[in-house]
Amino acid sequence: MRLLEERIRKDGIVKPGNVLKVDSFLNHQMDVELFGEMGKEFYRLFRDRKVNKILTIEASGIGIACIAAQYFQVPVVFAKKSQSINLDGEQYVAKVESFTHKRVYDVIVAKKFLKEEDRVLIIDDFLANGCAVAGLIDLVEAAGAAVEGVGIAVEKGFQDGGRLLRSKGIRVESLAIVESMDERTGEIQFRS
Amino acid sequence: MRLLEERIRKDGIVKPGNVLKVDSFLNHQMDVELFGEMGKEFYRLFRDRKVNKILTIEASGIGIACIAAQYFQVPVVFAKKSQSINLDGEQYVAKVESFTHKRVYDVIVAKKFLKEEDRVLIIDDFLANGCAVAGLIDLVEAAGAAVEGVGIAVEKGFQDGGRLLRSKGIRVESLAIVESMDERTGEIQFRS
Repeated sequence: MRLLEERIRKDGIVKPGNVLKVDSFLNHQMDVELFGEMGKEFYRLFRDRKVNKILTIEASGIGIACIAAQYFQVPVVFAKKSQSINLDGEQYVAKVESFTHKRVYDVIVAKKFLKEEDRVLIIDDFLANGCAVAGLIDLVEAAGAAVEGVGIAVEKGFQDGGRLLRSKGIRVESLAIVESMDERTGEIQFRS
Repeated sequence: MRLLEERIRKDGIVKPGNVLKVDSFLNHQMDVELFGEMGKEFYRLFRDRKVNKILTIEASGIGIACIAAQYFQVPVVFAKKSQSINLDGEQYVAKVESFTHKRVYDVIVAKKFLKEEDRVLIIDDFLANGCAVAGLIDLVEAAGAAVEGVGIAVEKGFQDGGRLLRSKGIRVESLAIVESMDERTGEIQFRS
């Protein structure tokens, strides 16, 4: 998606350790007008699938998922990363290893919000090693529901997540795929 | 807001310990069509203020804030509850006591996303004792920016947060104010 690639080139910052900071428009400050264009694009890409629910994970996937859900006219469920008194009843739980927080955590969805008949589109802001998305897929599969696809804002194409998911036959659509980035020059190459 | 009150009466569940569960449409599964109506209402209530930024807190405020921001045509910033490698540079930090997680945590915003010239609308899903909103106000004030108002989906009118904030002259608009709720009968009374 040209608009997102241009924005990443303009405002993304390449940091040591393969970190791409897009916090000025994607995952700390959020440009909801851009999210609207991204939501339209996700809808164009997945409108052939009978999606009835969008699943994402707190926190930075929520904004993108909610704006996209307006085009699909379906509810969003976000997986939680910690227990709280607001989580009761039976739950699906999967383990996820976080790159940004350097720890393993649970992702949790109340069973009542994922049903066997659900056809789920997973949306998240980043795809790198794919652990978060794999955890969300585990939750959907535990419910006996169908993963209709995975929609990602920014994929790090030089990490393994996208390749692994696609090799399992999962339809993954990333709006921007970073092929390489250079922390010295700040240059970013996208997959065409 | 009648639509939200009706939805809370229909799908909200009153639990022991003054817990109101609205997880089927507000803060675990999210009804984005309802969020659209709520966003329009926030805009109607605050359109007279020259808001140029919406501030919320992860995770359950983000969806409501992003949908509302479409009507204001402004970006959203969400305060983070934990450090990560995505947070670098200078930060504003405030302490918040969580009722739902039973602990004290930091709320953090990168300084570059709150500036002295900003006119901020704070949006969150719940207002009870007001600690989270007070933490967000601390962040805005630390930046020398202006709090134009506080928009809340569900206020627990029988707890102190709303009264305390309003007594400080802060404009707080809650789309539904629960006056009382009965865990035995499940009955919910709203402030008129």
